[in-house]
Amino acid sequence: MAELSVRSVLVTGANRGIGLGFVQHFLRMPKPPQWIFAGCRDPKGQRAKELQNLASKHPNIIIIPLEVSDPASIKAAAAKVGEHLGGSGLNLLINNAAILKVRTLDAETLEDMSEVYTTNTIGPLLMAQAFLPLLKKAAQGSPSSGLSCSKAAIVNISSNGGSISSLYAWEIIQSTSYRCSKAALNMLSKCQSLAYKEHGILCVALHPGWVQTDMGNSPGQVPPTTVDESVQGMLKVLSTLSEKETGAFLDWEGKVIPW
Amino acid sequence: MAELSVRSVLVTGANRGIGLGFVQHFLRMPKPPQWIFAGCRDPKGQRAKELQNLASKHPNIIIIPLEVSDPASIKAAAAKVGEHLGGSGLNLLINNAAILKVRTLDAETLEDMSEVYTTNTIGPLLMAQAFLPLLKKAAQGSPSSGLSCSKAAIVNISSNGGSISSLYAWEIIQSTSYRCSKAALNMLSKCQSLAYKEHGILCVALHPGWVQTDMGNSPGQVPPTTVDESVQGMLKVLSTLSEKETGAFLDWEGKVIPW
Repeated sequence: MAELSVRSVLVTGANRGIGLGFVQHFLRMPKPPQWIFAGCRDPKGQRAKELQNLASKHPNIIIIPLEVSDPASIKAAAAKVGEHLGGSGLNLLINNAAILKVRTLDAETLEDMSEVYTTNTIGPLLMAQAFLPLLKKAAQGSPSSGLSCSKAAIVNISSNGGSISSLYAWEIIQSTSYRCSKAALNMLSKCQSLAYKEHGILCVALHPGWVQTDMGNSPGQVPPTTVDESVQGMLKVLSTLSEKETGAFLDWEGKVIPW
Repeated sequence: MAELSVRSVLVTGANRGIGLGFVQHFLRMPKPPQWIFAGCRDPKGQRAKELQNLASKHPNIIIIPLEVSDPASIKAAAAKVGEHLGGSGLNLLINNAAILKVRTLDAETLEDMSEVYTTNTIGPLLMAQAFLPLLKKAAQGSPSSGLSCSKAAIVNISSNGGSISSLYAWEIIQSTSYRCSKAALNMLSKCQSLAYKEHGILCVALHPGWVQTDMGNSPGQVPPTTVDESVQGMLKVLSTLSEKETGAFLDWEGKVIPW
């Protein structure tokens, strides 16, 4: 198994939880990326303190102000990332930013359904559109012929909550807005895998596990998986992917999840 | 096989295409429904002429002004339907209204993604919420113990374009906004089937086939299925459903479609 080796990566929602975990794990790699772009809604806010501290010690972390539900913010972020990269491309886009609203089906509203879909599904679509030129450039600049995450890839952090066939943990948490957004994100990943294959870009949807984060924690229950375990698992999975797996829906241990 | 037999039905998007086809087929039944509520965005507009003509000859057709992307309009419609029904319930809610925007993945926008999701996914969710009391009433008033479409049911008109595993006809039409909305609608149907089972309400997602309608027609290609064939097939399928099939995704001939 080849090690994952990228010159540049962008992680959205990088100030906390799984996003921050990705940044930390990239730093710890034997050959860390030259650029780790850490997208974050409010880089100067209290909730970005840990990311700020990390960036102050590691000059290869570039914090990028980014609101994935705002096309103008995405456009500005793509321009900024492009400037940093100079003439080179972006190897890896990790669409991690997401929101969850815990509601029963009866309590869902148009506003909540819409807000969750905009962040969790439309955001990843717009991000891929905006960063496509940089991803293409990375693919074109790579000597390898097949698809791989070290060359050029879009990784959409999905959830087994979006598996229509299993409707995982419905009894514990309904959150139809979240489930619908993740089922749609899985569809988006599949569409992206077909549309971007010709450009040499791999696309995959990953379920990170039930992870000890602000989102994963729920009253009286401790999720079984730590951020470290989840991110380490996902990075290992990413390192193994080739054109055979583009468009797949996998968990953090590499198992295929049914749609 | 029992015949489908309902006292009341509501069809959204009933002025054209498959929606109008449902209204016509209900009228032709040996024992037509006492109330056929025909939801329609602009009942007085040019595009509702055929429905108006039909309603002028059949007093059991009640045209209901209905914009499924507008919670206030849905609320008003539910109140109106409730008044007509007096003390009785609504047997069948057919969420048929939907929009399609033909776009390549590169050309999708936040606005289009959002508009399509609101009509195709959030609309059916809000409709079911608003009509739940009437559907429950129909279920409670029925002597039969299991689930059936003659008793109380929500039928979401989906599409095989929303099948993530098959990505049907991607080479002909990408329309990621539509595919994502239908994958999410399939998720919604599954959620509704679990949430509403205890109330005696069956929920199903149906693919109507590729049908000769304004939506189905595309330049240079004639869809293989007529509205009549599609609606007749779907009504036959609906008549066969029981609690075993609640939450399923079936086509107009009764075949299971993979998620």
